[in-house]
Amino acid sequence: MFIRKKLCDLGEFNLINLIRKTTKLKDKRVLVGIGDDCAVIKEDAEKILLATTDMLVEGVHFTTNFSPYLIGKKSIIVNISDIVATGGFPKYALVSVGFPKTVKLDFVTGIYRGIKDVCNEFNIDIVGGDTVYSEKTIINIALIGEIEKGRYLLRSGAKVGDYVLVTGFLGEGISHLLDKKIYIPKIRLDFVKELVRYNLVHSMIDISDGLSSEINHIANESNVGAEIFEKCIPISNYTFRIAKTYKRNPYELALNGGEDYELLFTVGPEKLFDILRIAKNKTKVSILGRIVLRKFKVTLITGNYERRMLYSEGYDQFKSK
Amino acid sequence: MFIRKKLCDLGEFNLINLIRKTTKLKDKRVLVGIGDDCAVIKEDAEKILLATTDMLVEGVHFTTNFSPYLIGKKSIIVNISDIVATGGFPKYALVSVGFPKTVKLDFVTGIYRGIKDVCNEFNIDIVGGDTVYSEKTIINIALIGEIEKGRYLLRSGAKVGDYVLVTGFLGEGISHLLDKKIYIPKIRLDFVKELVRYNLVHSMIDISDGLSSEINHIANESNVGAEIFEKCIPISNYTFRIAKTYKRNPYELALNGGEDYELLFTVGPEKLFDILRIAKNKTKVSILGRIVLRKFKVTLITGNYERRMLYSEGYDQFKSK
Repeated sequence: MFIRKKLCDLGEFNLINLIRKTTKLKDKRVLVGIGDDCAVIKEDAEKILLATTDMLVEGVHFTTNFSPYLIGKKSIIVNISDIVATGGFPKYALVSVGFPKTVKLDFVTGIYRGIKDVCNEFNIDIVGGDTVYSEKTIINIALIGEIEKGRYLLRSGAKVGDYVLVTGFLGEGISHLLDKKIYIPKIRLDFVKELVRYNLVHSMIDISDGLSSEINHIANESNVGAEIFEKCIPISNYTFRIAKTYKRNPYELALNGGEDYELLFTVGPEKLFDILRIAKNKTKVSILGRIVLRKFKVTLITGNYERRMLYSEGYDQFKSK
Repeated sequence: MFIRKKLCDLGEFNLINLIRKTTKLKDKRVLVGIGDDCAVIKEDAEKILLATTDMLVEGVHFTTNFSPYLIGKKSIIVNISDIVATGGFPKYALVSVGFPKTVKLDFVTGIYRGIKDVCNEFNIDIVGGDTVYSEKTIINIALIGEIEKGRYLLRSGAKVGDYVLVTGFLGEGISHLLDKKIYIPKIRLDFVKELVRYNLVHSMIDISDGLSSEINHIANESNVGAEIFEKCIPISNYTFRIAKTYKRNPYELALNGGEDYELLFTVGPEKLFDILRIAKNKTKVSILGRIVLRKFKVTLITGNYERRMLYSEGYDQFKSK
């Protein structure tokens, strides 16, 4: 089955596909398994259980020079982002940590303070966990959330003619990384609550790997195409400045940088103004483009009004040098 | 608050207590949080949700010389053990893995095969996960289970006069470790099903850190004492042989070794024969001693019929050299 021998030859997406393909779901209550932001499980007649997990590793996602408080915050925020991108409410967290024996206690308690402050803000209970010895600090959080039946938002609901929208600014995650800072993503819980309440959205995903990657996820899972206008991508002055300093193209950072955890979503044209009204003065929302027929694929309209294919070029951690 | 500066000064149990003390539960549906084998969460009028997580790290819990298939099996078995020790059924797993870029693909797929074979055996669905780059291989599994309302078994239910029982042999985990082998614990799901069905057990815990540690957990959480007869501790010929080879006391291995994942439980004297009848020819069960008043503390009656205090001497990974 495998001619290639090492994980770096396979890459992250092929690994996930391999796992996904060989994982058959046995339980009819599992509505969505591997492959979306969250697992979606039927809890009872009224409620749906959401479950997600994320792992952060020292030397890869953070260093011990970073604020432990912010590392802790980020470790739970990225999980909340998955639950919120599915339209749900985070509820219960399981926190596993690995620490070196000689780690400073301040570092340990700082991480826990960060996790707990976020849990308090979002009314999440830490219900369990594991603590192990490890040469490098590791944080794995599994988060369980809930949503009412029939309300959850998937990548697979985009329809031809939908507008493609995004919250916040893109490229923030990679800019902070270049700047050797930890980026704490924003959680748009109140905004999503309204979207879910009025049933305004066809598909949604959080941008963990980069816009180019996530719009392709939506297109593939929804069996549609998309066109994105490069000039419409929201980029902050901070990202422009960092791009200049590090001689990078700011649009390339926004398209492929990842770690932004903003929400990418699609809405029918008749609902566009409802959404802009909800967002007004509270949530920055930008229109990026629209959903087209599958045969038109996923394309980018550049600043010079040229059309080019937009491939999934998000960060592949196993392939990077 | 901390005069001591490093994690190894604090130790694992103090760390867990620190986390537990500072974690207030907000949601009334959380019946049991940090501190038992599983979190116990009220799902609806009839059902209870159980949740647990365990992390295995290369160089600590296994090496790359071990069979990846067995590493995979173990990583999910230790979680199933927690769910079963609470009387429940495992249902949904979230699998997070960290792998070095240059790890052999056979190693990766071997781990997944091990996890999946166990999931198939116990009808567990892998509903999600995370894959990250890491210098050492890491496996974190979060497992969600279920049980009927009012049926779950905690550490805190032991009553004065109860018999203390244990399944299988103790010391197997540490003996395999000394022997440089990976020990795959046995899961007693069918046996526990019967115990739960007939409501035969007052308290239960799985032996992850060692008998001395777990009996103290039961005593502390139930506000009782216990006396354990050393000569009654079930030890296999394999453990006696390994103890001889490595010049270790086999009873010390059984008391403090850990990683056995056998079930330690207490039952009222009137139910003892029901349990022995259920176990007969199917599950090895040994009577270790009995639950006494708190003031008599937790003691061991040695082979020479001397009584000594039995302190929690289970393996503390942060304090070990």
